[in-house]
Parts: sequence; structure tokens; C-alpha cells
Amino acid sequence: MKKFLPLFLFLFVAAVRAGEPVAEIKAVLAAQTDAWNRGDLDGFMRAYWRSDELRFTSDGTVTRGWKSTLKRYKKRYPEKAAMGALTFTIQEVTVLAPDAAVVFGKWELAREQGHPWGWFTLTLRQLPEGWRIVADHTSSAEK
Amino acid sequence: MKKFLPLFLFLFVAAVRAGEPVAEIKAVLAAQTDAWNRGDLDGFMRAYWRSDELRFTSDGTVTRGWKSTLKRYKKRYPEKAAMGALTFTIQEVTVLAPDAAVVFGKWELAREQGHPWGWFTLTLRQLPEGWRIVADHTSSAEK
Repeated sequence: MKKFLPLFLFLFVAAVRAGEPVAEIKAVLAAQTDAWNRGDLDGFMRAYWRSDELRFTSDGTVTRGWKSTLKRYKKRYPEKAAMGALTFTIQEVTVLAPDAAVVFGKWELAREQGHPWGWFTLTLRQLPEGWRIVADHTSSAEK
Repeated sequence: MKKFLPLFLFLFVAAVRAGEPVAEIKAVLAAQTDAWNRGDLDGFMRAYWRSDELRFTSDGTVTRGWKSTLKRYKKRYPEKAAMGALTFTIQEVTVLAPDAAVVFGKWELAREQGHPWGWFTLTLRQLPEGWRIVADHTSSAEK
């Protein structure tokens, strides 16, 4: 038995590292809303792929790249009051491959002025740094 | 050599059947817009997964199931004039697994009254009947 110990150890570590995609993805998104609700936009942005290829679509506008997406958020939400309280209600996490998933859910923003809400479809990949959003399509219900 | 013929034949057929996901997906979407532009909603709906689990999100509304999605289209586009001319401009086809892909693109409708447009994110799976849209998130640019 003893000679198999390194193998068992390797498999155990691999299993822990592979983890549970659904739970890990939900944790990334929970950390994201927590950051938002602390008024921490940089923390919020940690859920996104830090790449020029990140795609962020909100209604009619497509923003390309992590830096441009952060800039867009900072412009639209210059202070905590504008940010309000964000809630994500995840409807479905579909794991399409060991390193790829699509998440569909509802977003709601409770602010002093109004209560915007809508839906989001996120494409996530498992990268060395963890699960990250590589494409975000967000739409608002209000027309 | 001769005894390997069945094997070669099998591999050839398997390769043809597996095809090129990106080309096949584009063909499904091209057939879909062609059907729309003929005023053929049933043909248009052939691109969608014929299942109660199909998810169709358009701005604020989520429709579940193939039949409900067809019904919604028939109600919104009762005749050819309302349907106008549909164009899809595919921006990106991301193949996430041999049987799963995400497509991002722009839709435009040229009608006598107005020119609505927006973005779509489609999740497709390769099913026995071919590549089909299993989830559609469409948003319109006009607010």
C-alpha cells in the first residue's frame, strides 16, 4: 500500500483543486456582490477576467477589456450612494466543460432613487487564478 | 491495408459527423434568419432546442420552453410586415466543449416602422439533431 501513497496524495490534492465548479462559481459571485455592497468597485472587478479580451455588454453598449469595464463602472457609480445595494439571484449555473460554465440570473439594485433590475448571462472559465467571468451580457428590464 | 478499410471508413464518417462546430453553428443561425426573412416562424424556431427547458430572455421577460417561445413570437409578429428583415452579425463563436458553444452577436430588424437592434448571447449544445440554441439572452439597445 505504502508505495501508492504519493499517488493517493496526488489524486486527493487534484480532487480538492478541481473542487466543485458550481459552489466555486457561486462563491465568486457572492464575493462580487459583497464587494459592491461595501462600495468596493476594485473588489467587484476581481470576478472578471483581467484581460483586454473581456467582453461586457450592457443593453446597447459593448465594452472590451477589463480596464475599460472598470472605468465604465467608476464613471457610472462615482460614489457609494449611486451604487446602492446589489442582489444577484442565480437561476441557473450550467457547467459546459470542466473549465467552462454559463450562469443566468437576476440583478437588482436597491437605491434611494428607484429600483432597477434585469437579467444577466455570464460566461465563466476556470483560469489559474480561479473561476472568472470572461463575458457578461446584462440587460435591464426597464425600457 | 484492406482489413483496415472498415476502420478508415468509420473514422471518416465520424470526422464528417463531428464536422466543424463554428461552421455548423453559423449555418444553423443563417438558416434561422433566412426562415425569418421568408416569414416562416416555424422554420425560425428550428434553431431552438425543442424542449420545455429552453430559456428565452428578451429584455425583462424570461420565457421557458420551446412552445411558449414560439407562441410569444407568433403573438409579437402576427404577419410578415411586422417581422421585417432580420440581420445577425456574429461577433464571436466560442466553442467551450465539443458539444457546447456560446455565440455573441448583433441583431437588427429593418422594418417600415423603425429599425430596432441590440445584442444576443446564445448558448448552444450539439444534440443528436444538430447544434441547437438551449438558452437565448437578447437585449435591445433602445431604451
